[in-house]
Amino acid sequence: MEAILNEEDARDLGIHPTDRINLSARRANIVAIANTTRNFIGKGEIGIMDEVRRAMGVKGGESLSVSLAAKPESIDFIRKKMRGESLNEGEYDVIVKDVIANNLSDIELTAFVSALYINEMTMDETAHLTRKMAENGEMLKLEKTVVYDKHSIGGVPGNKITLLIVPIVAAAGLTIPKTSSRAITSACGTADIMEVLAPVTFSSSEIEKIVNKTNGIIAWGGGVNLAPTDDIFIQVEYPLAIDPRNLAICSVMAKKYAVGANFVVIDIPMGEGTKIETMEEAKKYARDFVELGDRLDITVECAITYGDKPIGRAIGPALEAKEGLRTLEGSGPSSLIEKSIDIAGIILEAGDVARKGRGKKAARDLLKSGKALTKMREIIAEQGGNPKVTSEDIEVGKYRVNVYSTKEGYVTHILNKAMVQIARTAGAPKDKGAGISLNIAKGIKVKEGDLLFEIYAESKYKLAQAEKLARHMHPVILEGMLLRRISEYMILDR
Amino acid sequence: MEAILNEEDARDLGIHPTDRINLSARRANIVAIANTTRNFIGKGEIGIMDEVRRAMGVKGGESLSVSLAAKPESIDFIRKKMRGESLNEGEYDVIVKDVIANNLSDIELTAFVSALYINEMTMDETAHLTRKMAENGEMLKLEKTVVYDKHSIGGVPGNKITLLIVPIVAAAGLTIPKTSSRAITSACGTADIMEVLAPVTFSSSEIEKIVNKTNGIIAWGGGVNLAPTDDIFIQVEYPLAIDPRNLAICSVMAKKYAVGANFVVIDIPMGEGTKIETMEEAKKYARDFVELGDRLDITVECAITYGDKPIGRAIGPALEAKEGLRTLEGSGPSSLIEKSIDIAGIILEAGDVARKGRGKKAARDLLKSGKALTKMREIIAEQGGNPKVTSEDIEVGKYRVNVYSTKEGYVTHILNKAMVQIARTAGAPKDKGAGISLNIAKGIKVKEGDLLFEIYAESKYKLAQAEKLARHMHPVILEGMLLRRISEYMILDR
Repeated sequence: MEAILNEEDARDLGIHPTDRINLSARRANIVAIANTTRNFIGKGEIGIMDEVRRAMGVKGGESLSVSLAAKPESIDFIRKKMRGESLNEGEYDVIVKDVIANNLSDIELTAFVSALYINEMTMDETAHLTRKMAENGEMLKLEKTVVYDKHSIGGVPGNKITLLIVPIVAAAGLTIPKTSSRAITSACGTADIMEVLAPVTFSSSEIEKIVNKTNGIIAWGGGVNLAPTDDIFIQVEYPLAIDPRNLAICSVMAKKYAVGANFVVIDIPMGEGTKIETMEEAKKYARDFVELGDRLDITVECAITYGDKPIGRAIGPALEAKEGLRTLEGSGPSSLIEKSIDIAGIILEAGDVARKGRGKKAARDLLKSGKALTKMREIIAEQGGNPKVTSEDIEVGKYRVNVYSTKEGYVTHILNKAMVQIARTAGAPKDKGAGISLNIAKGIKVKEGDLLFEIYAESKYKLAQAEKLARHMHPVILEGMLLRRISEYMILDR
Repeated sequence: MEAILNEEDARDLGIHPTDRINLSARRANIVAIANTTRNFIGKGEIGIMDEVRRAMGVKGGESLSVSLAAKPESIDFIRKKMRGESLNEGEYDVIVKDVIANNLSDIELTAFVSALYINEMTMDETAHLTRKMAENGEMLKLEKTVVYDKHSIGGVPGNKITLLIVPIVAAAGLTIPKTSSRAITSACGTADIMEVLAPVTFSSSEIEKIVNKTNGIIAWGGGVNLAPTDDIFIQVEYPLAIDPRNLAICSVMAKKYAVGANFVVIDIPMGEGTKIETMEEAKKYARDFVELGDRLDITVECAITYGDKPIGRAIGPALEAKEGLRTLEGSGPSSLIEKSIDIAGIILEAGDVARKGRGKKAARDLLKSGKALTKMREIIAEQGGNPKVTSEDIEVGKYRVNVYSTKEGYVTHILNKAMVQIARTAGAPKDKGAGISLNIAKGIKVKEGDLLFEIYAESKYKLAQAEKLARHMHPVILEGMLLRRISEYMILDR
């Protein structure tokens, strides 16, 4: 909340830009961040933002009194963290409350995120921050006392496994209130995909109602106020292109804590072109997730998965919704099926639905028998979508271009980042029908003129741009000889 | 430079808030930082700041084309520094250029300052940054090939020694092109004081002309573009209330490098209520200044001075100008005289005007003989002031209140910070006549009803506020017994 003073008035009052000021009117007092100007605002006048005006219930022409206010206590704690000291639970509570109330400026917020990035946090601090991120937002209250959840670290296109895992787990009678994100820099998030099938924006009480009825949901996390600091930290991380590991782990686990999860599987895709490129780093993530879960009374199991190429064949909201639904209907790509039932299987074992080592089979049975499809239709119906929808019904972009191979060879690489960029250029995630359908998989031999992939778009212009990019980026790498054939998907470590 | 897009347009173009965008019009192309809005700016429209409009030479209603631009290279280097790595000279050059061109957002700037604060810099890095801060601004070109300068680390009220040192040194035939700051949080900066006697805002060529003629000047540093990153870093440091030691040292030395200084004395006031509270810290500062000077081919000598109480008796622009001039005229407080001639003496020895150990005496002679006063009048005249001004002519605030002792005792403390706050509340530095005139010194015995100090102001209201604050803050501490009598001023280490 900002208020703008005339430079001379500010000097008279001893107020500098970025200082906090008390604004008082008849009806309300608030604290705002001061800015000053030589023009625009005359002497004796003050410029206030709409949000300030509403918060104070004042109109233009009314008098306000202005005085210098103390800096928020948060700034002392931010500086303490900058000096390399640890913060306690109460200090994180103060900071999180100020972050959520939008009391901190970009400068103060950046100093905090930078300090966490540079100085890191002890595991105690990580637990404090996680708990406070959750407790200062909404917390789900579900009827079932045992709650399961999953999360995939991003970075792998086509990773639509939630569309299979949620109905499989829910069909087994276990509770899984999944909240997902929309794409920020990827081609689509799970919320973007699910939105093709049903609405995804719900309040916490609506989520509670749907989950109490069906055991599952695939909702957009941004529609409900669970651990709401996340989006605010991203505003700092994005322009700096940093992804502080400890904050990432906090964000994931705060959302799990807020839905009341007791058991969580974390899918950690590893490999070239993902967020986590080495096994060592993946294991460090896994250890931190498990240790943090321990302190939050959440049992965490991590699956380090092979992630250096897309999962399944489809990239883009409608194409992925179609592929996910088709897989539930009985025919999908093996990489998608295997990964989904591997992770669902871990949950089924934790929930005593299957014995140790039998979870994957139980998950496969629920998929093959059509029980997962039935459950998915039930969830779609409760979320307000059409429960009779089939994969055939889902419309994809009406403009399409085929990209063919210009030589012969084995597919040794399918480049995640290039694929994402092409899909985004074609219009994903905003244009639901835009995306890519792959016709090849890693390890396969192709001849000159073979179809590599199709690009879909909702506009001719975007299709042409995406095609141009595809020809320029060579997202499918062919080599003369296949050195090593690895299966299309595998769990590397669990 | 910011440009605001409609949220939907931004999504279509794959542009996020804080992304860089290329804006092209017929006449010019520029890079701006994108923001988005759901209201205010319609689809197909763009909102640009006045500076962008001028830079592009466009009018309302004209068409611009917009595309995503690459992030500035600086952000890679900032991130590198955040990771704890060292940056090379070229990398600091890129960052400094972007800082000066206002190409970095608050977030990016804060990340840089935070990284320097948390991870510190090697001495090599400090030298790189200092040189680049200077070289990317204006550099003075003086006729004299040997240039002397001084700098006082802030924090001690009444520290008007520049008003004596510059004329003493210049009267001895040495060149001293002193640029000074205005107060930010103090009661007054040297530029605020000098402005009572003459204008202080000059271009670099005007400074060169005045110094070539008189050997000296006391100009406002902000009026000339020497090492201009300083003010920009302060915009981040101030709200966080941090004062990164390495950046502070860079800022001082960059300005000295930019005026072409060969020899610099740094006055490091030490003690309770100053910026530097311990001898250990003061010595660390001193060592860093000397080592950095070494790398810049500037000989640095540091004087660690006793700074836990005001220097002289006057605080506030006009009161200090009056006291400074009165001292040049022949009668001033000993703490001010001794400190000024100590530091001037160091410069006179360095300039071979006096033999080793005889500098202080030479400085005292120049002061006593009236040669320093004559030189000061010459400098005042060249800066455009009245050369015939006497200390009696200087007007102070017409409203005054006396503050008396309410008990008997020895003055054991005069609290710097409280004195500054009272003077600022009385109107300093903006109201030139506002401030404090002390009637006591540390170690003196006072009786009940003795005058402790007078507060001056230009407005009755501010005087009343300042008086209230003075009664509340007890800025003069009296004890029953004087435990240790120390002289009013001393150099603790050199």
